[in-house]
Amino acid sequence: MLQPEFQIPPLFAYFALFLWALSGAIVGMHKRYDLAGVFVIALLASTGGSTLRDGLFLQQKPPVLTDAWYIILTMLATIAVGFFRDRIARMTLVDRVINVIDALGVPAFAVIGMQLSLAAEVPLPGVVLIGMINGFGGGILRDLMVGDTPVALKPGTFYVSAAFLVCVLFVVLVAVLDVNNTVAAWSVIGLFVLVRLLSLRYDWRTQPILPPQ
Amino acid sequence: MLQPEFQIPPLFAYFALFLWALSGAIVGMHKRYDLAGVFVIALLASTGGSTLRDGLFLQQKPPVLTDAWYIILTMLATIAVGFFRDRIARMTLVDRVINVIDALGVPAFAVIGMQLSLAAEVPLPGVVLIGMINGFGGGILRDLMVGDTPVALKPGTFYVSAAFLVCVLFVVLVAVLDVNNTVAAWSVIGLFVLVRLLSLRYDWRTQPILPPQ
Amino acid sequence: MLQPEFQIPPLFAYFALFLWALSGAIVGMHKRYDLAGVFVIALLASTGGSTLRDGLFLQQKPPVLTDAWYIILTMLATIAVGFFRDRIARMTLVDRVINVIDALGVPAFAVIGMQLSLAAEVPLPGVVLIGMINGFGGGILRDLMVGDTPVALKPGTFYVSAAFLVCVLFVVLVAVLDVNNTVAAWSVIGLFVLVRLLSLRYDWRTQPILPPQ
Repeated sequence: MLQPEFQIPPLFAYFALFLWALSGAIVGMHKRYDLAGVFVIALLASTGGSTLRDGLFLQQKPPVLTDAWYIILTMLATIAVGFFRDRIARMTLVDRVINVIDALGVPAFAVIGMQLSLAAEVPLPGVVLIGMINGFGGGILRDLMVGDTPVALKPGTFYVSAAFLVCVLFVVLVAVLDVNNTVAAWSVIGLFVLVRLLSLRYDWRTQPILPPQ
Repeated sequence: MLQPEFQIPPLFAYFALFLWALSGAIVGMHKRYDLAGVFVIALLASTGGSTLRDGLFLQQKPPVLTDAWYIILTMLATIAVGFFRDRIARMTLVDRVINVIDALGVPAFAVIGMQLSLAAEVPLPGVVLIGMINGFGGGILRDLMVGDTPVALKPGTFYVSAAFLVCVLFVVLVAVLDVNNTVAAWSVIGLFVLVRLLSLRYDWRTQPILPPQ
Repeated sequence: MLQPEFQIPPLFAYFALFLWALSGAIVGMHKRYDLAGVFVIALLASTGGSTLRDGLFLQQKPPVLTDAWYIILTMLATIAVGFFRDRIARMTLVDRVINVIDALGVPAFAVIGMQLSLAAEVPLPGVVLIGMINGFGGGILRDLMVGDTPVALKPGTFYVSAAFLVCVLFVVLVAVLDVNNTVAAWSVIGLFVLVRLLSLRYDWRTQPILPPQ
């Protein structure tokens, strides 16, 4: 039923990690942190999700401990942000840049987490949960550490709901409909990016359960 | 010495979980989150304590990953809060409702955590620690995530101290005095609920170590 | 290559733990917490780093669960702070006291974490990471829990960078240059304390990547 051999290619996983690290470094730079502080925030963003996934849930050593590329790529992203600091500082819509990075980073990390959970024979509701934690964990830790409300939880943006739907879709495709793992992965990543960019472009918003006062 | 076969009945554990999920959903709704955001806060409240307990301390997969009821009951609580949103919104004393829910939820989860730790042969001071983490973890994560000071740590309320005393009492009853596990469990749950409700009713307060300025 | 038999003496580890507990208790007292709340913050400060290290990364039961001294020493620190509350309250430079305690506590815990990681055959970049987490984890959790910006991440202080450099130095000394583990440990602890106290005394500051507006 499962084809764990067809997975997100490692190069794409590293690319998503680099994007997350960039987002963390940009956030840290705007908080006026020094090089070390910016690196800490970048590392939280790039490795927080996988560390929560493995450390709290799957009970295995997180990849940041065993795969040196996690730290190296995060350092490179920190240096890159430092190098282009003036150009980044002049950008009027930094929030939007972070949003676009997250739009790709969330589904990429979510799919990686779900593929690992399926291989670890986690029950299907747990697979969706791991997908969400792997997808959002780094961004939430990044925002909490610098003292911001997590972007993912800001009331009204079409974000967590969209990710939840594509995570459920991925599990249904792979574990119920027996769709090829790679095809399902790219489909839900593409779908999430599309929905997320459209929702940012046209300001689609979900309704709070309780209407604003 | 230990009778792990006499435990909190599963139905009561699920009931406590549902109460915690309700408290999280109410807090999330008042923050004007959408359905997905409210569910995230409800899930933190209902499963945060057991996930910290198992993921950080007991080194086993947390139940939210393996027991589908954890997610289902939290969804039901979220839907219930959405359904009765107008009635909940009109309540003038929402903080008090959360306090009453927590008054039952804290000792229920604390006893479950201590029973699991005793079965895992954790040393007795560690058993009390796990009880406190299982009892308060979800509520603290719920409050931190929405940006509030954790209710449990608000200076002066008779809450953490009371829980600490009943956790020590439970360990003494079960592991030293060899009292029946079920009797000890219900006794300390009842005692904590009583003390907590009385302290809310009569505004009993502990003294800060340093007098207010 | 490694000589895990030459380690930080247990007495020194307990002394560092006691210092961390003092720092947490002082912070909690100034937030006007009661005895139980002060103890919770002291416990986060004294055991948070080792719990993150073992629970999230090394996948073993954290020492607070198995070594009763962790809880006992934290209780003693809480009682000591309560006993000398008036003297501590009169201190005009409490932040500075915390800084001095942290100056010794960070490298002590960092070295303990790195020695454990080397013994667990973690790859060298991971060893540095564990050193940083063990060194800063408790202080960061202490500050986040009371709602402060973590001291370690405050922009511009020469702190995380200095710790990173001494952690790299320790790994190079022990794992590359084959220096005696105990000699390397005391050298980097002494070097960090010296650099940190000098940087506090003369207000050495690192530059934010992005100049202040």
